[in-house]
Amino acid sequence: MDESPRHRTGGREARRALRSHSHDVYLPFLTRTLAPFEVLNEEGLSIIERNADTILEEVGVEIRGDTDALRLFREAGADLTGERVRFPRGLCRSIVQATAPHEFVQYARNPERSVRIGGDATVLAPSYGTPFVRDLDNGRRYGTIEDFRNFVKLAYMSPHLQHSGGTVCEPVDVPVHKRHLDMVYAHMRFSDKPFMGSVTHPDRARDTVAMARILFGADYLEDHAVVTSLINANSPLVWDATMLGSARAYAEANQATIITPFILAGAMAPVTAAGVCAQTLAESLVGMAFTQLVRPGAPVILGSFASSISMQSGAPTFGTPEPALVLYAMASLARRLGVPFRSGGNLCASKVADAQAAYESAATFWPTIQAGVNFVLHAAGWLEGGLAIGYEKFILDADQCGMAAVFVKGIDLSENGQALDAIRENGPGHHFLGTAHTLANFETAFYRSEVADNNSFEQWLEGGSLDAAQRANRIWKRMLSEYEAPAIDPAIDEALLDFIARRKAVLPDSEV
Amino acid sequence: MDESPRHRTGGREARRALRSHSHDVYLPFLTRTLAPFEVLNEEGLSIIERNADTILEEVGVEIRGDTDALRLFREAGADLTGERVRFPRGLCRSIVQATAPHEFVQYARNPERSVRIGGDATVLAPSYGTPFVRDLDNGRRYGTIEDFRNFVKLAYMSPHLQHSGGTVCEPVDVPVHKRHLDMVYAHMRFSDKPFMGSVTHPDRARDTVAMARILFGADYLEDHAVVTSLINANSPLVWDATMLGSARAYAEANQATIITPFILAGAMAPVTAAGVCAQTLAESLVGMAFTQLVRPGAPVILGSFASSISMQSGAPTFGTPEPALVLYAMASLARRLGVPFRSGGNLCASKVADAQAAYESAATFWPTIQAGVNFVLHAAGWLEGGLAIGYEKFILDADQCGMAAVFVKGIDLSENGQALDAIRENGPGHHFLGTAHTLANFETAFYRSEVADNNSFEQWLEGGSLDAAQRANRIWKRMLSEYEAPAIDPAIDEALLDFIARRKAVLPDSEV
Repeated sequence: MDESPRHRTGGREARRALRSHSHDVYLPFLTRTLAPFEVLNEEGLSIIERNADTILEEVGVEIRGDTDALRLFREAGADLTGERVRFPRGLCRSIVQATAPHEFVQYARNPERSVRIGGDATVLAPSYGTPFVRDLDNGRRYGTIEDFRNFVKLAYMSPHLQHSGGTVCEPVDVPVHKRHLDMVYAHMRFSDKPFMGSVTHPDRARDTVAMARILFGADYLEDHAVVTSLINANSPLVWDATMLGSARAYAEANQATIITPFILAGAMAPVTAAGVCAQTLAESLVGMAFTQLVRPGAPVILGSFASSISMQSGAPTFGTPEPALVLYAMASLARRLGVPFRSGGNLCASKVADAQAAYESAATFWPTIQAGVNFVLHAAGWLEGGLAIGYEKFILDADQCGMAAVFVKGIDLSENGQALDAIRENGPGHHFLGTAHTLANFETAFYRSEVADNNSFEQWLEGGSLDAAQRANRIWKRMLSEYEAPAIDPAIDEALLDFIARRKAVLPDSEV
Repeated sequence: MDESPRHRTGGREARRALRSHSHDVYLPFLTRTLAPFEVLNEEGLSIIERNADTILEEVGVEIRGDTDALRLFREAGADLTGERVRFPRGLCRSIVQATAPHEFVQYARNPERSVRIGGDATVLAPSYGTPFVRDLDNGRRYGTIEDFRNFVKLAYMSPHLQHSGGTVCEPVDVPVHKRHLDMVYAHMRFSDKPFMGSVTHPDRARDTVAMARILFGADYLEDHAVVTSLINANSPLVWDATMLGSARAYAEANQATIITPFILAGAMAPVTAAGVCAQTLAESLVGMAFTQLVRPGAPVILGSFASSISMQSGAPTFGTPEPALVLYAMASLARRLGVPFRSGGNLCASKVADAQAAYESAATFWPTIQAGVNFVLHAAGWLEGGLAIGYEKFILDADQCGMAAVFVKGIDLSENGQALDAIRENGPGHHFLGTAHTLANFETAFYRSEVADNNSFEQWLEGGSLDAAQRANRIWKRMLSEYEAPAIDPAIDEALLDFIARRKAVLPDSEV
């Protein structure tokens, strides 16, 4: 079977360019070689699972405004009281385990950029959903479609991100009800990496699917996931019609969804990690089961977004130890369930790309990597609790992503890696700078950061005493100035633009 | 047996104050509840151990200028050719395993501050050995004895550091050959936490021991470790008379040493992680075996300081993925050997406390914590590859240390931790802010950072748009202004000052 996208229309050259690299799945995602770090043992994980079942059995969830979802759950064996749905123990788990894939490939229009999601793979995607953008020159301001395109371009150019993400920022200069078209188009046109679809209304999800059919060929979607989209629960224990409707639109088209309870502990869940985990598992089980009832086998990811709030001010906090524990536990629970897991990223509460931003980001990102998270949203750019995406932060985070890719490879135990001969030949008291082993390996021996300044104090002073954010500022500007769009079949491009124009013409005015 | 220090002279009140808390070991060090992260399996670790033995057998080490050490090794079964010492396979390991303690207590003059080193305990100590200091007001400058005292005071006041460290900075305004006396005195007088001794000359190590005998009582040292000191190998594969002489002085007095190959891969060892590990293990085995030959049972810690260099400029780099892998592997090797392990810290190459500093520090510190390192030097303040200690960086790092203490406790699975009743009572769609469970737990639910700004953008703007370093600047100044010295028996203080005066009077002029 030919795994590269098929198109209904022309562009022979573009097609050939695509097919010339048509091996099934290309490398760039991270492949973990190390066993994940565990914070709970078998007994602890069983307690959480049992509690999730208890929540689903005794408390249940509310399914708001979606009678079709209620019908599906009733037919599957759930107990309905109005919109309150309670589940016999194990029901959601068994629905998910019966048909949800352990892992899947999200195909990109450039087959080399297709990614495997699940198992030992980790895919890194930019920050998502921020109304504001920030850069050192202009400070903080509302995002625009130009900013959106810029971040798509930067993610496309970054060797450290494998995914284009979704709402990398809100383009507030485009009307709310039309912007999903411009956003999806930007991912399709200015990048060839995999991307996410709109979820703010079921119609917008269907528009995303329609555009994906133009880009990949309508039949292609039937057995290829080409869009992965973010479906958030309305925690605690509520699923609403917007999110379920969008999830349905994607699942019907056999496209992937990330079912994510968004939880700030103390507000949307209890303050304790074990409580957050049980509730997250309960909520996500319902959403995942829903996708499988809509279309058995549709790719679905267990998502967990969990942080804390300041119990003094109520403000969200990031990078504290409690969410790291939740992340590790949820990763284990997803593995036991047998589905891909999404969590983590480079999260912070800091307003600027300073030391707070970096410590907090790392305190989420290290657990993200060592838990073996499969899909990592917010891997680059996140600031201010998700209210802003920063150009400089994006560059700094992407550098950390590059390091993670080296880390997960573990220690090379080949003969060259053991380097015993080098030590034998070198002997006591002589440095290794000029040895044959060093010369043979120096190009690839160490991760080479583009952002870090390792020069002497004096050199750094001469260079203008730039801090990390100032250096990152130069890097993103250089990248954008060097950006070249990936080739696209002109007929497909035209068809996409035509679709967008027609949809914009008929979409009613709306500010929602 | 009374475990609190005994003094030869007066100070009944001070003695009573000490003894009123005379439980054996008090809390404040971190106690790991989670299994360490592993980067090598049994087979991989065996390969490294075998290679270390091969290095010791075939290449050996040079013991420079210490005939007594050569004699000890020869008598133990090593093979000598001049100063080159080769070891039959397993010899050093068996010497270490025969008598070195798996863990030990380093006693502080305030018994509540005594720490356990080894096993599941983690002890955090400030940065060590920097000639320069930096703060936001005065920039970078040579350290002074006032800076030294300031960092001792800050470490004393920090709830997140359990150890006062050693050469927190070089007090360059005191002559080289006399400054060890002022440094050791500062730790003894301005803190009551455990501390490190001088290692720059065997005589200075003996001065440290003499001062410890005044502080704790001479007999007390015979069966209580009260000083832990840093002994660095001269990598690759050289041990020199200064370091061995200092190690001997401490081991003879039954005091603890940290035997640490200091390795920048590519310079002092091969570029590969497996090569660095084998060489580190070989070098540290020799140093540890030496302490056990000097005095069987003397507390000794396997140390590993490993980072990389830029293969472009030769400059040391920090926070890259390769040293993290080395750290994890070395921690496993120390566990297999059965000795406490020292490594890690908040290391960085950055000149200032910016995002680079924080990312790099976290990229060492998270592995430090998740590897279960027992003694962590450089946990707070390190900048510029160890050339400077920063006041602001110190505060920022200490905050991360506080978070680590929460993280290592793992997830609370008590009934209160599971919070099932809270979820039951709360039901779908209602926030948890005012629930009984939240109110009962909110004081302790989440780690509360003193440095992080979690306010809204607008509040942050109103507060002056301070970055993390600027906020840290206010914190260390406030701390120093509030500092109060811990009580000390005036007779002991007088005896210490008298000893220092007498030593300074007879010490020959020296700039080494």
